Amino acid sequence: MNSMPTRFGAELPPWVLEEIAGDPAALPGVEERMRLVNRLAERNHREDTGGPFAAVVSRRDSGEVLSVGVNLVLTYDLSSLHAEVVAISLAQVRLGTWNLGPHELELAVNWRPCVMCYGAAMWSGVTRLVVAGEGDDLERLTGFDEGPMRDDWREQFERRGIEVQSGVLRAEATAVFRAYGQRTDAVVYNGRG
Amino acid sequence: MNSMPTRFGAELPPWVLEEIAGDPAALPGVEERMRLVNRLAERNHREDTGGPFAAVVSRRDSGEVLSVGVNLVLTYDLSSLHAEVVAISLAQVRLGTWNLGPHELELAVNWRPCVMCYGAAMWSGVTRLVVAGEGDDLERLTGFDEGPMRDDWREQFERRGIEVQSGVLRAEATAVFRAYGQRTDAVVYNGRG
Repeated sequence: MNSMPTRFGAELPPWVLEEIAGDPAALPGVEERMRLVNRLAERNHREDTGGPFAAVVSRRDSGEVLSVGVNLVLTYDLSSLHAEVVAISLAQVRLGTWNLGPHELELAVNWRPCVMCYGAAMWSGVTRLVVAGEGDDLERLTGFDEGPMRDDWREQFERRGIEVQSGVLRAEATAVFRAYGQRTDAVVYNGRG
Repeated sequence: MNSMPTRFGAELPPWVLEEIAGDPAALPGVEERMRLVNRLAERNHREDTGGPFAAVVSRRDSGEVLSVGVNLVLTYDLSSLHAEVVAISLAQVRLGTWNLGPHELELAVNWRPCVMCYGAAMWSGVTRLVVAGEGDDLERLTGFDEGPMRDDWREQFERRGIEVQSGVLRAEATAVFRAYGQRTDAVVYNGRG
């Protein structure tokens, strides 16, 4: 076996750091954090760097933002680069550990995670998930497949020490999904045979 | 906001390329592919580069191996670097696309994927999943939490064009898990608060 690829990775697009440069280091209110998530999600698809999704990892006590992520599937041609995976990975880079658990962190996302990111959140050690909403609006507005979730997904999180808050700036989130779905060049990056 | 981390990634440990250097470029039999998976999984934990898991992406028609992956959570301190994510990402690097679907590829893994990798496989475009086994042996032998899967996980795959074959070299796979579970320094990297 030769010519085997050996490395992969991702870097936030330059516009992300430019976008957040003027923001305070801590966002104590949950709506402030979700407003940042929605802003990054909207700009991500407008910039054509990925789908209309973003995520923010912050400290539960202070609201200090440790990392931000946007969906980068299209930028890097890697199907696992959903916003949650990017934000979680960057928080782990920052703290130098695969286990965010002892740091008491929140993951905020602009919709309930897909089945992959449901697991990614579960293994990361975040202890709180905040989402703008859940249900079939996202799939209806954008065409994305979010995968087969269990009805007791929230209880399964809570059993593992992850609390869930839903319904934060939901209308703002669905407005972003609607705008993406209305683009004639929107890409639905669910790989299929 | 400043000092925000911006990049993350992974590279296969040098021993992986050394390990496969003498193997043929194509492994036409499913047991040959699983034997490679089990071999890489075993060596991965012996080398202390990650948990006892490996994955291989190959062409369904010829058995040509496009990429291999091992669990690299502990090497890079990134909780999403399960073997499946590594192998899928490297196949996408090799083919230059997030959608492996048109290439008719198989993902072989030494156990049924956890809930995160279930989604990662689903979004990658692989059209065939081969696993050494499924059920609670893995969790019992190693202590890993595989997450809440739906009872109809296989039908959900098939509905999306992904066929599943289970029970390939199962005893060899569980022997690796048992060896890992018996290590006094085994790490169970399910992040928890």
